[in-house]
Amino acid sequence: MHNGTRYRIAVAGASGYAGGEILRILSGHPSCEIGVLTAHSQVGQLVGKVQPHLRSLAHRRFEDTTPENFIGHDVVFLALPHGKSGEISDAIAQLAPECLIIDCGADHRLIDVEAWDEFYGGSFHAPWVYGVPELLVGKTKQRDNLIGAQRIAAPGCNASTVALALTPGISAGVIDGSDVVAVLAVGPSGAGKSLKPNLLASEILGSASPYAVGGVHRHIPEIQQALRGAGGEDIRISFTPVLVPMSRGILATCSAPLSPGVDAATVRSAWETAYSDEQFVQLLPEGQHPATGWTVGANTVLMSVTVDEKAQRVVVIAAVDNLAKGTAGAAVQSMNIALGLPEGAGLSVNGVAP
Amino acid sequence: MHNGTRYRIAVAGASGYAGGEILRILSGHPSCEIGVLTAHSQVGQLVGKVQPHLRSLAHRRFEDTTPENFIGHDVVFLALPHGKSGEISDAIAQLAPECLIIDCGADHRLIDVEAWDEFYGGSFHAPWVYGVPELLVGKTKQRDNLIGAQRIAAPGCNASTVALALTPGISAGVIDGSDVVAVLAVGPSGAGKSLKPNLLASEILGSASPYAVGGVHRHIPEIQQALRGAGGEDIRISFTPVLVPMSRGILATCSAPLSPGVDAATVRSAWETAYSDEQFVQLLPEGQHPATGWTVGANTVLMSVTVDEKAQRVVVIAAVDNLAKGTAGAAVQSMNIALGLPEGAGLSVNGVAP
Amino acid sequence: MHNGTRYRIAVAGASGYAGGEILRILSGHPSCEIGVLTAHSQVGQLVGKVQPHLRSLAHRRFEDTTPENFIGHDVVFLALPHGKSGEISDAIAQLAPECLIIDCGADHRLIDVEAWDEFYGGSFHAPWVYGVPELLVGKTKQRDNLIGAQRIAAPGCNASTVALALTPGISAGVIDGSDVVAVLAVGPSGAGKSLKPNLLASEILGSASPYAVGGVHRHIPEIQQALRGAGGEDIRISFTPVLVPMSRGILATCSAPLSPGVDAATVRSAWETAYSDEQFVQLLPEGQHPATGWTVGANTVLMSVTVDEKAQRVVVIAAVDNLAKGTAGAAVQSMNIALGLPEGAGLSVNGVAP
Amino acid sequence: MHNGTRYRIAVAGASGYAGGEILRILSGHPSCEIGVLTAHSQVGQLVGKVQPHLRSLAHRRFEDTTPENFIGHDVVFLALPHGKSGEISDAIAQLAPECLIIDCGADHRLIDVEAWDEFYGGSFHAPWVYGVPELLVGKTKQRDNLIGAQRIAAPGCNASTVALALTPGISAGVIDGSDVVAVLAVGPSGAGKSLKPNLLASEILGSASPYAVGGVHRHIPEIQQALRGAGGEDIRISFTPVLVPMSRGILATCSAPLSPGVDAATVRSAWETAYSDEQFVQLLPEGQHPATGWTVGANTVLMSVTVDEKAQRVVVIAAVDNLAKGTAGAAVQSMNIALGLPEGAGLSVNGVAP
Repeated sequence: MHNGTRYRIAVAGASGYAGGEILRILSGHPSCEIGVLTAHSQVGQLVGKVQPHLRSLAHRRFEDTTPENFIGHDVVFLALPHGKSGEISDAIAQLAPECLIIDCGADHRLIDVEAWDEFYGGSFHAPWVYGVPELLVGKTKQRDNLIGAQRIAAPGCNASTVALALTPGISAGVIDGSDVVAVLAVGPSGAGKSLKPNLLASEILGSASPYAVGGVHRHIPEIQQALRGAGGEDIRISFTPVLVPMSRGILATCSAPLSPGVDAATVRSAWETAYSDEQFVQLLPEGQHPATGWTVGANTVLMSVTVDEKAQRVVVIAAVDNLAKGTAGAAVQSMNIALGLPEGAGLSVNGVAP
Repeated sequence: MHNGTRYRIAVAGASGYAGGEILRILSGHPSCEIGVLTAHSQVGQLVGKVQPHLRSLAHRRFEDTTPENFIGHDVVFLALPHGKSGEISDAIAQLAPECLIIDCGADHRLIDVEAWDEFYGGSFHAPWVYGVPELLVGKTKQRDNLIGAQRIAAPGCNASTVALALTPGISAGVIDGSDVVAVLAVGPSGAGKSLKPNLLASEILGSASPYAVGGVHRHIPEIQQALRGAGGEDIRISFTPVLVPMSRGILATCSAPLSPGVDAATVRSAWETAYSDEQFVQLLPEGQHPATGWTVGANTVLMSVTVDEKAQRVVVIAAVDNLAKGTAGAAVQSMNIALGLPEGAGLSVNGVAP
Repeated sequence: MHNGTRYRIAVAGASGYAGGEILRILSGHPSCEIGVLTAHSQVGQLVGKVQPHLRSLAHRRFEDTTPENFIGHDVVFLALPHGKSGEISDAIAQLAPECLIIDCGADHRLIDVEAWDEFYGGSFHAPWVYGVPELLVGKTKQRDNLIGAQRIAAPGCNASTVALALTPGISAGVIDGSDVVAVLAVGPSGAGKSLKPNLLASEILGSASPYAVGGVHRHIPEIQQALRGAGGEDIRISFTPVLVPMSRGILATCSAPLSPGVDAATVRSAWETAYSDEQFVQLLPEGQHPATGWTVGANTVLMSVTVDEKAQRVVVIAAVDNLAKGTAGAAVQSMNIALGLPEGAGLSVNGVAP
Repeated sequence: MHNGTRYRIAVAGASGYAGGEILRILSGHPSCEIGVLTAHSQVGQLVGKVQPHLRSLAHRRFEDTTPENFIGHDVVFLALPHGKSGEISDAIAQLAPECLIIDCGADHRLIDVEAWDEFYGGSFHAPWVYGVPELLVGKTKQRDNLIGAQRIAAPGCNASTVALALTPGISAGVIDGSDVVAVLAVGPSGAGKSLKPNLLASEILGSASPYAVGGVHRHIPEIQQALRGAGGEDIRISFTPVLVPMSRGILATCSAPLSPGVDAATVRSAWETAYSDEQFVQLLPEGQHPATGWTVGANTVLMSVTVDEKAQRVVVIAAVDNLAKGTAGAAVQSMNIALGLPEGAGLSVNGVAP
């Protein structure tokens, strides 16, 4: 695609939280040069006003999200509200056919039209290559599919976290995917900058509040798709996200029935085998459990696996920064693979803590 | 026990969080007069120094936790570390046989010696009347057992929350107790004032962290006992508490398999029937889910019940203030019942929010 | 005004944070019965939906804020956006001339038309009796003016906190009011439920952010008015509020130059004299400083006074719950005085902590 | 000192918050290789257990803080409790005379023995080169003194923040240093991992609490020293830190009297002149004020300058990450200058937000 050493990158939806995180990561990426930044209501505004933490871009201004503005870029990241990516990606593809397009929205994630209609609605768009390199797909990793890809769908943050937590067990047959329960403590940044009363600081501070209870959260079909991809057949999942007072982070407490006759060592080895060579998905030593604070700003998923013999369930707890590895980090990591760059370029394995 | 209108109350362990909350509630109780306050390392210290929010008692001093100090009181609340209540309660009972003793520790909660040995260890103490008035016991309520009681075991905060969440479904046979999953977002005040590194503000702020993962939390046998009391036979529970950055509160996301052939209306009516007459346990209207912030300082459990048809699970979410209804409120409510006072005396149904 | 024992109370703006706090307090008030609750966009909605922490009123519905709806009430609390109280209070006064009206907005606080024009603008409304009973006015207390009052202006939360912190020193002549500096750590609930991006939880969590910097905050003229009332002549104040991640609370760090030749004991005695008989304004023992967490839900101001000899400044730190003593508590306390009820009726001196 | 491209770095006190932040930054530094990590009570423990966010070092173990362990390193960072650096630095200097030693403690910051005795006590140690490159010293910058330095004293986080905020005005003569007032909202990580009751999450969450009130905070003489260095003569400062519920961050609200006859434009130009060429100290556009959240993990100080004509004060607000630019970032930046590396190597100007 490019014979120089630096790729020119555009970001659509650069005024939001996901767009801001993509920019934060790309600002430290050795092979990237940041091109056009587009927005909607903030067109013409200084980046320093809207994303004041991005000091290296403070003097830049947001432009309009018109397809023409993306001409001349090697990579375009779309961090747009669901439904918008589908429209614009076709237009960009026509204007700049060589361009690598990475969508951080949901528009290109689902294979199943019915699931799309049920959970999202509106026009269905063709699925792109799913941007979770470490995900087991059968006995291989999704990484293989990302090499040289031109259209990538970055994952939903909750979905990729739960999928990474459970696919090793599904793939190895040590857990039963038909009765998965996942309860997630999540920070409000996952909901973006939407001006909703329940996202006001006064409501979130000092309180834990669930939402999308009872099987209606949009990340459910995405999880099911991933677990099926790992070999699960009858996948059922009870999924409950709980907003807690931290700006970033997902702590996913996932469990599934232990398959009959499987011992704890076999369970653990399924996860060890899956992730021992991965830098960004790490299984903690036995007895240590992850905290979201350890992953802030990092492209890292931390995980523990525990067998509860009495409850006959395997409990997998995964911590992640929803904006970093959950969204923007996964997108940049996927870009690196697609472009043949070192997979970890621009990405940190270490969190900003405490 | 007393023919006047005011009872004289002693609190042992008055320097801790649970003891402080008992005092806060009793300070506004129309029939109580606060007597001796005892502590351990804070003996001689002003209450205003150790519990600076208790302005009405700021000039009082902590005394020693010796049995003699409790003579002359009508009621003694024990808010001591586990293992301590057992010792002192015998001595108090001898010195003041008429006294109502309410233990907020675990020493008198469990019926099952084996469960005690496995989860706590040390001397086993006889179980006292369990202080959760609204709990279904068979088809009756625990309230009946509290009338006139002289020895009361206030509940574990997590345990009573999960028990109240699930017993209506167990009792009505609409859920299966053999595969319960409970994940709780909890504030650190439940752990008391212990000086542990993981309870430092720097560690908790901006982070969610699980603990006691995989079937080892001490509240598990207490939950099992309550669910069995409601008619459950084979009770298995996967229980995971997650510390989140709020000082108070428990948001318990509980689920259990839907019994075959039961419809959503039947499920809901189990909880409606159980709690429609209760002031302190309230089922929210369909579609509304509880937040812990709404219960701060209140003696209230808020609950939602949702049937997830696809996952074939009933999801019950309960919010509570762990120090209030979870501990001190339950203790005072139980005292009110035992003494024949109005059950809600001194207790607020309304939370301090936002 | 009334020869029964219970007063019928209406609350306008009952869907907001201040209105909610008035209702929370009145729900536990022995001499009050809650009448009409009015709102704007939430008319017809259940209280349980909008103020879900107010369980005792969950079944009630909001009505329209028309003057007629207030007929038949003994007391009307106005918790309306600034500018609205002025309009409606005249209409109510005509319809119900005997009614006690307490405005929690700014419309009736300022005496000085020029200050009104500069900081607020729009129609000026006559000042009502200022609802801070403990405030020194010359050598007397504002309490005297509240007895039998029919029109009361509850204070601005920041303003009353700073005024209570500094008036003893101004009145006693031990500090110089011409170079006051006040920096306040404040929770976002003071800004109400406004849907502004800077009030989103993602922005507030983990961050401290100043606003209204450099002499433009609307509470400045209110503070100046109070300090002048205490005897100050040339009052100048540098005032900076800083939003911090706690839902409630004001921690006001105030300082002013020590008057020449005054020693530390004389300084301290100014505050001791002013507040030793007050239950709701308490000077902490030397060496102890207040935290806002100790005042949550309480009608209490906690204060420390420290002389910094080297800096030649007196530092007064005051902690308060902005919604309670800062607004709704002050309003109810003022109502109690106006009606001849016990001043502390329905009000708690103890905070909900931790 | 070294003719290769990578320097070998040791960190003493690597188990604490400051030590951890040094390691986080060095892990991404292109010219550094991390050598020995020493601790006290954690000797032998895995880094992954104590600093679980430092995934790239998780397999390393802490060694003992004996001078011999530092032989063979090019740079040693000391992140030790005050009083410990003085002892060990002499021993290291003897064993490895060429070594660059950077002390993050207070032992080598103060020039004035009397100030040391008053605020710290114990043995006085010779002052080292102060590690705040952007600080005005007379009309030059401290950067010049750091070039080629072999002994560097990293600043106190509060001290450097206030010093950077005020020195431009002192140096230009537009503010009067004899009546400085600084009130700081600070996160608890500045206090380290000390197990103190007031640092427990339950105490910090939902609360703002001052400490070291009235002229006793140890950073005061350090600020005075810096302001004198910038040309101030009679420096007096009222300094109050307020703990707020965020793990990291300092929001310093500083003010000083406006010098007679100086206009707002002249004031602003003093700060513009001082910092227009600095990448890590940035003056925000007029009307924008900094938030600490924008600086998390960054080596950046954000600042606003406002003239309050009525109060006759200049208000300077500065936001910083206490662990990053406040401590570890300043230390690494100083190392870069001392070693002749690019000043910003390994340091990020962009914060992790929201």
